[in-house]
Amino acid sequence: MSATPEQLKRIRLIVTDVDGVLTDGKINLTEDGVEIKSFCAKDSPPLRLALMNGLKVAFVTGRRSNAVEKRVAQYGIKAHYKSELKETGFMNFIEKEYGLVKTEIAYIGDDLNDLAGMKQVGIAFCPADAAAEVKDIAAIHTSAKGGEGVLAEVIRMVMEAQGTWKSAVEKFEQEQYAKPN
Amino acid sequence: MSATPEQLKRIRLIVTDVDGVLTDGKINLTEDGVEIKSFCAKDSPPLRLALMNGLKVAFVTGRRSNAVEKRVAQYGIKAHYKSELKETGFMNFIEKEYGLVKTEIAYIGDDLNDLAGMKQVGIAFCPADAAAEVKDIAAIHTSAKGGEGVLAEVIRMVMEAQGTWKSAVEKFEQEQYAKPN
Amino acid sequence: MSATPEQLKRIRLIVTDVDGVLTDGKINLTEDGVEIKSFCAKDSPPLRLALMNGLKVAFVTGRRSNAVEKRVAQYGIKAHYKSELKETGFMNFIEKEYGLVKTEIAYIGDDLNDLAGMKQVGIAFCPADAAAEVKDIAAIHTSAKGGEGVLAEVIRMVMEAQGTWKSAVEKFEQEQYAKPN
Amino acid sequence: MSATPEQLKRIRLIVTDVDGVLTDGKINLTEDGVEIKSFCAKDSPPLRLALMNGLKVAFVTGRRSNAVEKRVAQYGIKAHYKSELKETGFMNFIEKEYGLVKTEIAYIGDDLNDLAGMKQVGIAFCPADAAAEVKDIAAIHTSAKGGEGVLAEVIRMVMEAQGTWKSAVEKFEQEQYAKPN
Repeated sequence: MSATPEQLKRIRLIVTDVDGVLTDGKINLTEDGVEIKSFCAKDSPPLRLALMNGLKVAFVTGRRSNAVEKRVAQYGIKAHYKSELKETGFMNFIEKEYGLVKTEIAYIGDDLNDLAGMKQVGIAFCPADAAAEVKDIAAIHTSAKGGEGVLAEVIRMVMEAQGTWKSAVEKFEQEQYAKPN
Repeated sequence: MSATPEQLKRIRLIVTDVDGVLTDGKINLTEDGVEIKSFCAKDSPPLRLALMNGLKVAFVTGRRSNAVEKRVAQYGIKAHYKSELKETGFMNFIEKEYGLVKTEIAYIGDDLNDLAGMKQVGIAFCPADAAAEVKDIAAIHTSAKGGEGVLAEVIRMVMEAQGTWKSAVEKFEQEQYAKPN
Repeated sequence: MSATPEQLKRIRLIVTDVDGVLTDGKINLTEDGVEIKSFCAKDSPPLRLALMNGLKVAFVTGRRSNAVEKRVAQYGIKAHYKSELKETGFMNFIEKEYGLVKTEIAYIGDDLNDLAGMKQVGIAFCPADAAAEVKDIAAIHTSAKGGEGVLAEVIRMVMEAQGTWKSAVEKFEQEQYAKPN
Repeated sequence: MSATPEQLKRIRLIVTDVDGVLTDGKINLTEDGVEIKSFCAKDSPPLRLALMNGLKVAFVTGRRSNAVEKRVAQYGIKAHYKSELKETGFMNFIEKEYGLVKTEIAYIGDDLNDLAGMKQVGIAFCPADAAAEVKDIAAIHTSAKGGEGVLAEVIRMVMEAQGTWKSAVEKFEQEQYAKPN
């Protein structure tokens, strides 16, 4: 499967699962039962670029966790809980929260509990190491595995189709130089 | 070696070692001597599917750990300690605890201390990176290495042979959608 | 692209990004929001050799962190913050702090926020898994990925071009033996 | 290079470096500067087998750490510090501590600070991902990388040459079964 440039151009919101997409899917537990999640630094600059250029990004996850809350807070975005989405209905929720319609939404998922969400959006993406059923329905498989820059790859693809990637990178680069006095 | 569909159909309980099967076999120790275990999120949805469809799953491990206790508690299953199994005799223990016989049990192991258990069950499985002696006696080697979805792969194989996988995935997917009012 | 032996001979300071160069780019977050960075032991002996032989090494990073501070303290070197470098202008800062000019500086970066720094130095290096835009402008790509000994590889390359590597290794080895009484 | 079966038969003590041999060489640091080391569960059963069969094993490391102390305590063996070995002279130390001579010692090292030790023993081993200079002088390179079962592979090789491996595995397996009443 694949997505047309026209489909990619319409995307306004990227909804992404956390475990196995933004992380490597490892559930690290200490003896005290404290969990550690491994996010990927490669996702950070493209996420900033996307937000600076008017794309929206939202995390969805099955379990509340301070690690996720800390991560979204760094970017001023939101994490939604799957129970919440289920309660309201995935698209009802997205419509209320973001005022967007199906063809404007991309969803990145890697496992069986993402199937329902992936089937309700404009374009479904999955990491290279997603579950078989997920790969079957995803329009685009990233070359990255979970936790190795999946979101970065999706954002780049969307922004390239929308013609905003190159200028965004240039602007981002300029901002790294000294400000003129 | 391999297992026949008939053998797979008889399985009622999957007994799985923890370190090197459910985890990547890394023993992460902090300076304070606190251990961190890395479980794999890929194992979670298939584990839920198995339990919802009447398959039993049990963890066996050499060492007590809160990380393991937390993980089994999430699923309402049990972790048994190898010393306990040895005391009673592996099959005596399983028979008393689960009321099952040899051909109804699968065992997933990766190292020398799993050999005894693996030889007493209906079907022995091992991860792709198990010790040589374990690979020699395992009927089925998963394509996944330890901590990369070994249990998910075994559950899928057993449920596919039992004809329950596809409908279980569909039911699981339906439950992710909004409940009708 | 590549760098000539003459260019490598001129290097007096290696500036290296942290996340994704010295580390594997994983941002490990505990439930309490505590971050864990994974440095690579392979970088340690070459870093000691470089410093013992008059090369300077500096870390640059976007975010203050005790992990980075601890790591630089072990080597008696400094971590500079990107905001600081931006404020003063990258080369102004380097000139004031180290008294060196463009052709004497190497910069190792892996992501979009390193582009500005990489374009202002004598030789730009990047890990094998850097972002596409970074790979495009880096003179030398290491064979190591981020967190797998990138700095070790750069130091070795520079010191070999400068003819100091072999004798430095021999001297380092001698020091591991017992001191004569 | 390689080692003859005769050389392997003489080994009575395996001295192994920690970072990059028993661990994956990652130096994981929390924001509080706490270090986490990743040992490999694959090394555990062979280590028990070696000790049960009269082989000695010792860890050598550059830095004191509770993680290392905890790990050696589990096996009733010792960790020696490189400064200590240097002070006394590597072979003087080993001779006093273990009463053994050069040809009875194997050393597993991965980096430049292991070169001195590796040159003073009967057989030098290194992981697949050791530094170039270490690979040059090691008699045997394991197929495992650091932290992926290097010690397990060395112990197996030594015990197979000594003709003790197979019976040790069988005995170990027997002990996993229930004790007769």
